[in-house]
Amino acid sequence: MGRLEEKTISTKEIFKGKIISLQVEDVELPNGKTSKREIVKHPGAVAVIAVTDDKKIVLVEQYRKAMERTLVEIPAGKLEKGEDPAECARRELEEETGYECKEMEWLVSFYTSPGFADEIVHLYVAKGLSQKEDAAGLDEDEFVNVEEVALEEAIAYVREKKIYDAKTAYAIQYLQLQEALKR
Amino acid sequence: MGRLEEKTISTKEIFKGKIISLQVEDVELPNGKTSKREIVKHPGAVAVIAVTDDKKIVLVEQYRKAMERTLVEIPAGKLEKGEDPAECARRELEEETGYECKEMEWLVSFYTSPGFADEIVHLYVAKGLSQKEDAAGLDEDEFVNVEEVALEEAIAYVREKKIYDAKTAYAIQYLQLQEALKR
Repeated sequence: MGRLEEKTISTKEIFKGKIISLQVEDVELPNGKTSKREIVKHPGAVAVIAVTDDKKIVLVEQYRKAMERTLVEIPAGKLEKGEDPAECARRELEEETGYECKEMEWLVSFYTSPGFADEIVHLYVAKGLSQKEDAAGLDEDEFVNVEEVALEEAIAYVREKKIYDAKTAYAIQYLQLQEALKR
Repeated sequence: MGRLEEKTISTKEIFKGKIISLQVEDVELPNGKTSKREIVKHPGAVAVIAVTDDKKIVLVEQYRKAMERTLVEIPAGKLEKGEDPAECARRELEEETGYECKEMEWLVSFYTSPGFADEIVHLYVAKGLSQKEDAAGLDEDEFVNVEEVALEEAIAYVREKKIYDAKTAYAIQYLQLQEALKR
């Protein structure tokens, strides 16, 4: 097995923003040559698979400026500094959809774009959903339309590219797998 | 349904690199307030689910500088300017693993990090794999270890966080779903 590690020669901070920062690193490759790595730093995020008692998946439609269009996604959000991912998952679910849950169970975590970013998404499954009585938890500056759809409809959304992001595609496939394993 | 669109007020280019570029946009929110969006532009990528005749999944281990560790992933790579995604998938599969295929079938595409980047991954399934006689196609400046593992082993890799990125986690779950649907 070949050696793979790249050694950092120098790091240059290019940008430090509200959410991401960007640095360019000079690295030494395993064969001694040098190269540059463009790396985005991100605080990490959580996402929540939430299925209601009548088997509807809770989704949120929101505008994504990077793509200049809306996407339909599972509820998700960035980790605040030092925040526990499970707590963050509860907070985002409540702020975006008004749902609380009895249990927030970790399912899997993954890096979203390992080639240029360190963003990790922690994916949770919300168990025992209930709608909050008042909508006070809903975030005023968050513009989302909440949708509740059956699994078949969500699969159609993937086909129609209304659902078009990795974490939500993974989540829908996870629910398909659970259905298939039940049979 | 609420209005969701964000209007661009101004765009500032921060960085233009070899692979990504970064811009900060001032936007007008649906309620008239303004905000900033930090957006990474990426050329897009392809990834390939390749399963050998003896049902082994072809994986590549490589060093990911953003995480300062190696990850085991399905073969993948960036689109060259104007390149057809299916051609890119064939090229990356061959360069990284030495495998050719009879058919390269599109499965799904998804944005990896819609909150801050426009990167899209086009996921393909390689059908009719065969190892090239000479390894001339292998890219000299690409440092990867090729592995071929059974599905159960790949599932263990996900659990052990050797497989730890969204597209590969999706790919393994896809193969699990196909197995489950066969039963």
